[in-house]
Amino acid sequence: MIDLRSDTVTKPTEKMRKASFEAELGDDVYGEDPTINKLEEKAADVLGKESALFVTSGTQGNQIAVLTHCQPGNEIILEEESHLFYYEGAAISAFAGVQPRTIRGTRGAMDPLLVESAIRGDDVHLPETTLICLENTHNRAGGAVVSIENMKEIHSISSKYNIPIHLDGARLFNAAVALNQPVSEFTKYTTTVQICLSKGLGSPVGSIIAGDKEFIRKARKWRKRLGGGLRQAGVIAAPGYIALTEMVERLSEDHGNAKRLEEGIRNISTLDIVNQVDTNILLVDIKKLNISSNEFLEQIKNEGILAVAFGPTMIRFTTHYDITTEQIDQVITKLSKLFSH
Amino acid sequence: MIDLRSDTVTKPTEKMRKASFEAELGDDVYGEDPTINKLEEKAADVLGKESALFVTSGTQGNQIAVLTHCQPGNEIILEEESHLFYYEGAAISAFAGVQPRTIRGTRGAMDPLLVESAIRGDDVHLPETTLICLENTHNRAGGAVVSIENMKEIHSISSKYNIPIHLDGARLFNAAVALNQPVSEFTKYTTTVQICLSKGLGSPVGSIIAGDKEFIRKARKWRKRLGGGLRQAGVIAAPGYIALTEMVERLSEDHGNAKRLEEGIRNISTLDIVNQVDTNILLVDIKKLNISSNEFLEQIKNEGILAVAFGPTMIRFTTHYDITTEQIDQVITKLSKLFSH
Amino acid sequence: MIDLRSDTVTKPTEKMRKASFEAELGDDVYGEDPTINKLEEKAADVLGKESALFVTSGTQGNQIAVLTHCQPGNEIILEEESHLFYYEGAAISAFAGVQPRTIRGTRGAMDPLLVESAIRGDDVHLPETTLICLENTHNRAGGAVVSIENMKEIHSISSKYNIPIHLDGARLFNAAVALNQPVSEFTKYTTTVQICLSKGLGSPVGSIIAGDKEFIRKARKWRKRLGGGLRQAGVIAAPGYIALTEMVERLSEDHGNAKRLEEGIRNISTLDIVNQVDTNILLVDIKKLNISSNEFLEQIKNEGILAVAFGPTMIRFTTHYDITTEQIDQVITKLSKLFSH
Amino acid sequence: MIDLRSDTVTKPTEKMRKASFEAELGDDVYGEDPTINKLEEKAADVLGKESALFVTSGTQGNQIAVLTHCQPGNEIILEEESHLFYYEGAAISAFAGVQPRTIRGTRGAMDPLLVESAIRGDDVHLPETTLICLENTHNRAGGAVVSIENMKEIHSISSKYNIPIHLDGARLFNAAVALNQPVSEFTKYTTTVQICLSKGLGSPVGSIIAGDKEFIRKARKWRKRLGGGLRQAGVIAAPGYIALTEMVERLSEDHGNAKRLEEGIRNISTLDIVNQVDTNILLVDIKKLNISSNEFLEQIKNEGILAVAFGPTMIRFTTHYDITTEQIDQVITKLSKLFSH
Repeated sequence: MIDLRSDTVTKPTEKMRKASFEAELGDDVYGEDPTINKLEEKAADVLGKESALFVTSGTQGNQIAVLTHCQPGNEIILEEESHLFYYEGAAISAFAGVQPRTIRGTRGAMDPLLVESAIRGDDVHLPETTLICLENTHNRAGGAVVSIENMKEIHSISSKYNIPIHLDGARLFNAAVALNQPVSEFTKYTTTVQICLSKGLGSPVGSIIAGDKEFIRKARKWRKRLGGGLRQAGVIAAPGYIALTEMVERLSEDHGNAKRLEEGIRNISTLDIVNQVDTNILLVDIKKLNISSNEFLEQIKNEGILAVAFGPTMIRFTTHYDITTEQIDQVITKLSKLFSH
Repeated sequence: MIDLRSDTVTKPTEKMRKASFEAELGDDVYGEDPTINKLEEKAADVLGKESALFVTSGTQGNQIAVLTHCQPGNEIILEEESHLFYYEGAAISAFAGVQPRTIRGTRGAMDPLLVESAIRGDDVHLPETTLICLENTHNRAGGAVVSIENMKEIHSISSKYNIPIHLDGARLFNAAVALNQPVSEFTKYTTTVQICLSKGLGSPVGSIIAGDKEFIRKARKWRKRLGGGLRQAGVIAAPGYIALTEMVERLSEDHGNAKRLEEGIRNISTLDIVNQVDTNILLVDIKKLNISSNEFLEQIKNEGILAVAFGPTMIRFTTHYDITTEQIDQVITKLSKLFSH
Repeated sequence: MIDLRSDTVTKPTEKMRKASFEAELGDDVYGEDPTINKLEEKAADVLGKESALFVTSGTQGNQIAVLTHCQPGNEIILEEESHLFYYEGAAISAFAGVQPRTIRGTRGAMDPLLVESAIRGDDVHLPETTLICLENTHNRAGGAVVSIENMKEIHSISSKYNIPIHLDGARLFNAAVALNQPVSEFTKYTTTVQICLSKGLGSPVGSIIAGDKEFIRKARKWRKRLGGGLRQAGVIAAPGYIALTEMVERLSEDHGNAKRLEEGIRNISTLDIVNQVDTNILLVDIKKLNISSNEFLEQIKNEGILAVAFGPTMIRFTTHYDITTEQIDQVITKLSKLFSH
Repeated sequence: MIDLRSDTVTKPTEKMRKASFEAELGDDVYGEDPTINKLEEKAADVLGKESALFVTSGTQGNQIAVLTHCQPGNEIILEEESHLFYYEGAAISAFAGVQPRTIRGTRGAMDPLLVESAIRGDDVHLPETTLICLENTHNRAGGAVVSIENMKEIHSISSKYNIPIHLDGARLFNAAVALNQPVSEFTKYTTTVQICLSKGLGSPVGSIIAGDKEFIRKARKWRKRLGGGLRQAGVIAAPGYIALTEMVERLSEDHGNAKRLEEGIRNISTLDIVNQVDTNILLVDIKKLNISSNEFLEQIKNEGILAVAFGPTMIRFTTHYDITTEQIDQVITKLSKLFSH
């Protein structure tokens, strides 16, 4: 099987497994796991923040950020297909009690003027706007890189209104590699950030949130309530450290493979490329085939290819560490055979 | 002062005050206030539902509906400037823990196809869609009447997915009068409904929610939690009964006055009419004046006219029981003097 | 029927109804109802607080206090049979997301040492204690007056830990009359307070919360979310003003009647007085009769007497404005006939 | 350091680390991690339930159970020092919106009659009772084993009222070993159960919840919202499997060591044993020393011994896999030296 469903399917490398095997451990609820502590310090440094905290998933990191920044009855501004709004089971409302105010973005980027006009004034009928959430790269926009300029402009607005910004950077390293910038060039325009160790970076489990010390202090208590306070967490922090320090540069290979796949599919007239491929995600419209996404997925699965539906007639292909250029070429050949008429 | 801020400013009529003065009373928490019971029975009948419940405001009625229909982590579909989303302090998320999925409507009406495509599938990442909310007439769309046909189509979709519909009918009687239809022609396409006794109908306080018996049974407990369980509530139910039974037909006068105001303002070249005036609300764009809404409001206040801001350069005028045709003509004259150049 | 179920069943006096009939009105959501404003100013003055707000019920006032003082994940300390914990449908947890830490009181009063030991320390496993709630008089303790000394001691502890105190004073005027003290002698030991206009004071609907200006500013928004923002609320504020200014002293008559009832029942050997009668509530244990509370209530109802169950074999009798000394004597006679063997 | 703070501090065994190193992996969000699947099947089998789910901690498992069984505004019955109430940051109220009704137990066991009398009737003022939570062994009662007979009686009551029971079995295997019964003898009296793999069983991370298929289906979505949906979770499931299948019997050694420690301390006249030692926890009252818990902990830390405070003058010692009998003897010797006068 050539598994292009998600970069979450990557298996840990031999080196990661070995690091876990040998990790020095302690009880992280007591703050005594040296491997976790080392990872958190490194992550804070890389992300340009005072402090960082290991969490078990991107969703957990995002939820903790909202819980820590907001109170029930607040409103938060986010892109209308952002992960926080679209894929987290309405948890921001269920747990934090906040109302999402969604804005339709362009390739994942919200127009700063629209952001500003969505901020609520002071009236007894209106919720207070207490958070702006960004996502970079933006998953449902096809791994689109949101420009640093856009982030800077939104940051300038948020500062005017004294509203913090949280960045869902589940795939921030993809954006950083695509623009050839350090991640801190992005995070300097955000109050807090969440990054995943388990997608393109290849770690089996885990994410990081970062911000100032007071944010992390409060976040730690919300993590405990969510059940994310682990014991000998070093067993998963050890591969996470390798992910953070050794796996970033290679993301450009995934981006190259996604580009290669895009070019191959462009020659198949029944398939339409939806997105400009900035990173490791390719969206394909299959409308011309007159079959549903599920039928399409069934057909390619029979040929040993896995992908996911992103709409009734839209398919997402994602490249990652476990996918080689040769496999991309096989996929192109098979898709051509199946869908060229 | 000619107060066109809202139809909520109406004072109760002499007859209403007298009804309150003479009302037969009891303790409604024990279900023993005969005046409340009479009002609730009448309202259920008029609205074509099994059962009805008095609540202290439209917001309370809407919130109870969401609390009763939904559970935390659910998603509800509503128009992006609906009162429930826009003006209730994010209470749907704060109290019921539900996430709003907003759709941009046309004159307050949501495209049924967009409603259908917003319904969530069954996946561990996704919230379950458990309610569709409509608003008729639609306040921020300028008192626009949502057609019965549109409601019917959305009802047909909701039935397919087994999702209830709640109607925010704060001004449903305005829609009914505008289309010359009984309100039950609208509510037959909705599972539950909330109507206000205190806007165009002139009662000082109160709204009604209606639905089947099981809905009202549960609603009663949520009302208690919200603090809406009153004691000798008959003192406000008595005027409410008059509002419901004697004040509906006269809404056409308010509609006529709004139309008259629209025509007058159409002759003032610096003011642009925004909405098609279906009922008692008129929206005016003042951009050409190069002043802010607040400055505009200040200027007309000095001339004895009150209205409200509906945006940085948009003003809402609302006609109601306490506004006469003569006053409308005065308003036109004064606005002409102020803003015709 | 002689209705001893609750002091909530009182009907408004002729004077109250007249005040409502003649009340000067405005839209209270705009802050323009002069009758509400007058009531709120008077209430703030009487209660010794900066500011006050009309709410539709004691439950609503209590819930707003908790919502305003606390955040989700906080813990609040209250007596284990306090109204806030026992009779408000778990709303403190449903809406404010706070966990009640209950303490068994003695005649409604919590031991200050137990309060102090229940305050949580600073640890990632523990919720933060952010509110202490008192109730005076204490309903389920049989209308017991909590001493000013007890309130002072708890206040001294709460000050040490910087934790606010909210007083559920639904029947605070009963305590004040019983101790012959102004209510401000109680409220000076609490940060905020809720008092009911609709129990012994006889108003048909409504309560007041009071505190500093910032508290009331926030409370106003929570009231709107709960649906307690009314329009021409003066129709119920007018009788409320009379309740607050003219009905307090007469509470001593209710206390006298409760005492008279207690003495009468003391002679019926099958009935046991449970509580020391401080105010207008009498609790009677009927265990010796070998019947259930419901059977007892049925039997006295057949004789024209109403009361409520307070446990499987416990009955509460409450005196109030609509109960005369003659009626108390009738009740004693009838109970003697029924239950003396 | 001889670390008697908690059985959570155990380091994974060499075999556990090796199992993790070699584990067959997949993406558990897609249900494709074979190691997780194997663990969950085994756990369901051992616990006598249809289905089981891996969660990252005992707190997460408990919270998911409450979220799945309950709705906001419900009340749940639990022991007043149970972990769910005492140590989970008020999360049951913050997330699930439920109100805890606490009962003081005897050695962790609640009197079935008190449980029954705490169940709420049907009244508009009252929350619905929708869950009873048990804890076995009971941590704050000193690792006390709750008898199967007690569980059976509470189950019989809960069945009568159709209320589910959730068992916090973080240390259920300790109870099972102490009574020489399979865990299924306990869980047959509960609807759902949570057990920890990371305490006495020695796994670095993780817990299990089990119940019927519908419960687990819903639980999976709540786990995702809480951020507990992991990717290659097999890296921590592999040691968990060993914990579950190979580490149970040896708990008797921990119990023996706790007993040995108890006997040793019994000879130190300044220290008072608080609890009957059923399993691996020993509570010691240090009041006679006239020092605080923190001072005591400081003094023994200087001698190379760690424990935790359980109150102002109460200390908890916990034995576990990394503690030998020799170390227990050293602790006794050192405590004698320090505190015998």
